[in-house]
Amino acid sequence: MRILLVGAGGVGSAAVAIAARRSFFETMVVADYDLARAERAVAGHGDRFVAARLDASSAEAVAALCREHRITHVLNAVDPRFVMPIFDGAFAAGADYLDMAMSLSRPHPSAPYTETGVKLGDEQFAASSAWAAAGRLALCGIGVEPGLSDVFARYAADELFTEIDEIGVRDGANLTVDGYDFAPSFSIWTTIEECLNPPVIWAADRGWYTTPPFSEPEVFEFPEGIGPVECVNVEHEEVLLIPRWVKAKRVTFKYGLGEEFIEVLKTLHKLGLDTTSPVRVGGASVAPRDVVAASLPDPATLGDRMRGKTCAGTYVTGTGTDGRPRKVYLYHVVDNEWSMREYGHQAVVWQTAVNPVVALELLATGGWSGTGVLGPEAFPPVPFLDLLTGYGSPWGMEER
Amino acid sequence: MRILLVGAGGVGSAAVAIAARRSFFETMVVADYDLARAERAVAGHGDRFVAARLDASSAEAVAALCREHRITHVLNAVDPRFVMPIFDGAFAAGADYLDMAMSLSRPHPSAPYTETGVKLGDEQFAASSAWAAAGRLALCGIGVEPGLSDVFARYAADELFTEIDEIGVRDGANLTVDGYDFAPSFSIWTTIEECLNPPVIWAADRGWYTTPPFSEPEVFEFPEGIGPVECVNVEHEEVLLIPRWVKAKRVTFKYGLGEEFIEVLKTLHKLGLDTTSPVRVGGASVAPRDVVAASLPDPATLGDRMRGKTCAGTYVTGTGTDGRPRKVYLYHVVDNEWSMREYGHQAVVWQTAVNPVVALELLATGGWSGTGVLGPEAFPPVPFLDLLTGYGSPWGMEER
Repeated sequence: MRILLVGAGGVGSAAVAIAARRSFFETMVVADYDLARAERAVAGHGDRFVAARLDASSAEAVAALCREHRITHVLNAVDPRFVMPIFDGAFAAGADYLDMAMSLSRPHPSAPYTETGVKLGDEQFAASSAWAAAGRLALCGIGVEPGLSDVFARYAADELFTEIDEIGVRDGANLTVDGYDFAPSFSIWTTIEECLNPPVIWAADRGWYTTPPFSEPEVFEFPEGIGPVECVNVEHEEVLLIPRWVKAKRVTFKYGLGEEFIEVLKTLHKLGLDTTSPVRVGGASVAPRDVVAASLPDPATLGDRMRGKTCAGTYVTGTGTDGRPRKVYLYHVVDNEWSMREYGHQAVVWQTAVNPVVALELLATGGWSGTGVLGPEAFPPVPFLDLLTGYGSPWGMEER
Repeated sequence: MRILLVGAGGVGSAAVAIAARRSFFETMVVADYDLARAERAVAGHGDRFVAARLDASSAEAVAALCREHRITHVLNAVDPRFVMPIFDGAFAAGADYLDMAMSLSRPHPSAPYTETGVKLGDEQFAASSAWAAAGRLALCGIGVEPGLSDVFARYAADELFTEIDEIGVRDGANLTVDGYDFAPSFSIWTTIEECLNPPVIWAADRGWYTTPPFSEPEVFEFPEGIGPVECVNVEHEEVLLIPRWVKAKRVTFKYGLGEEFIEVLKTLHKLGLDTTSPVRVGGASVAPRDVVAASLPDPATLGDRMRGKTCAGTYVTGTGTDGRPRKVYLYHVVDNEWSMREYGHQAVVWQTAVNPVVALELLATGGWSGTGVLGPEAFPPVPFLDLLTGYGSPWGMEER
């Protein structure tokens, strides 16, 4: 297996550190728009890793780099606005493809808060038969959420339930960053994108539909000492992926943003600072959202100042295999102190990065295989969960 | 009198419309970085008005334009970051000078929320003896606040009180803008500057000192139907100007921001979006505060969608001329409907712009005269208040 990792940001750099301890691949080319950043990511990890410069907005450049290094698998670890050129570039070069976020949505033009428009991943699913016909695999949404959360959904359906009422992905943390009034622990660009787009919900009797942002707030109790966090509906890939392979009456995603973060996002929206449409400032033309991102500290650099744990998981309700009502939260917690000590990467990016590395290893060893555009829930969940535990990062389950 | 008006934004354009109805001056050159904006401001107001292009950050350019047009008085109507080059340029060209905001402050390096650093106007007052020696006048802070509010303070001291406990400038409005979630009615750049800098307070037994932003909230009842508005301490020129000429035990400025605006400003600060230090975005270098301003609608263009009234005034407490305790609010209210109908300019910029035009007329007719760097409270208040009423915009007084 010869891997092209696109993006040497927080998640990409953590993926390098995780992959460096595994032997399943032959080489990993780490490409970034900023070559120096790619070089920093590979430094000290041995000669299987090669740094390269790449403009991820160009499918031709992605394909050329794939051909140059005889790449078999492309792992996309950049902002989701670059999904399509990397996806297309991998296909053009005959490589398999993995990502952690899918092609972007566009709201319904007249009823954005009740109807879906272009959905997350629609552009990729439209190419599924072409990928299948070419015998190639695009494994989409294989970070932690989407990713591990989808594996949990499939595991619940396979092993724990005979009938599922709701699959509700629930994400929460108690992370704090010393010395900053406000410092998101994950890409603010992506957080704005997913939180300010109309949240999407799936219901068996209605299909996909949307609501206004921050709808249906609930306080969810997270395990391992994190405790209660206010969660709201957010647009997320799981809601688009899970119903394609797993039977449930309802699928939701709620993000434990907390009140302060919700207030910040609402204010950015109120002021138009969430927009990706450029404004003129002096002689320059800049997107306000990019300025917001540039004004905040890079979350990948904050690990030393972070404290606490982050939890990703899937809450499933329905009828258990014994025929009685059952409620289960399947989850994965990473303690920042552990991830910094073990890998030198902060908890949120480490938790995202470990999953595509596990998936690549399963694809390399034949534990997982497939063609077309597939989500993580299209594959058997047990080999994935076992190998994740083998990476030293076990998952948990709570009956509720 | 030959006037150079620097800045054809909201306040400058309103000043042109107001001055056009008065005969006291010979010519007014209206200069802006954007010549087309200057041309729009003078269009239709007769041949006493001339548009010009000017880079207000260059004292040499200001002086050259003054000499070219034999300017006797420079009226500065741009953001306060340009105060010093315009002030210096006017002096170099031998012209008198008026502004509506003074040279900027810099917080105390180690105790910003208890001690003053460089105060508003310090750089200008440092040049006062040079201006006096040259026989020239710099009349600083002659908008509405500072400006009319300072005239009210002097009027209270001259006519209404024998001893003053507190002079508290209080500014509030009930303006709304149809069709916008959030649309400030005044320059957001300036609003951020004055609201996020440490508020300054003057006490006779302590001198000037500072507090954290948004301190000492109080609900102040504004007249003419505006009603109660939450006000907080804000850095403002009156606190620096009034104690130099008017005896009082305490001088404060509180701005009726309202809870929503306070929340927005706190969020901008928390995210670093209030800063004027450039950040790199793609190939460009931009100041986040400029991006915030560029993302919001230009307040000068919102008059047609605005509704309500704005009130500026000075609340004075102490011992009245009859020896008994007295509390008086001296105020000036502008109804947006009136200012739009009469002048085609929205209430906030009109209310700011009328005062320097009144002052220029008093200087032209000899009603006011002086040399050095002076505030509005250095001059007799009655001629000013009478002429303001003569402009069709009377002031009011409430005993409380």
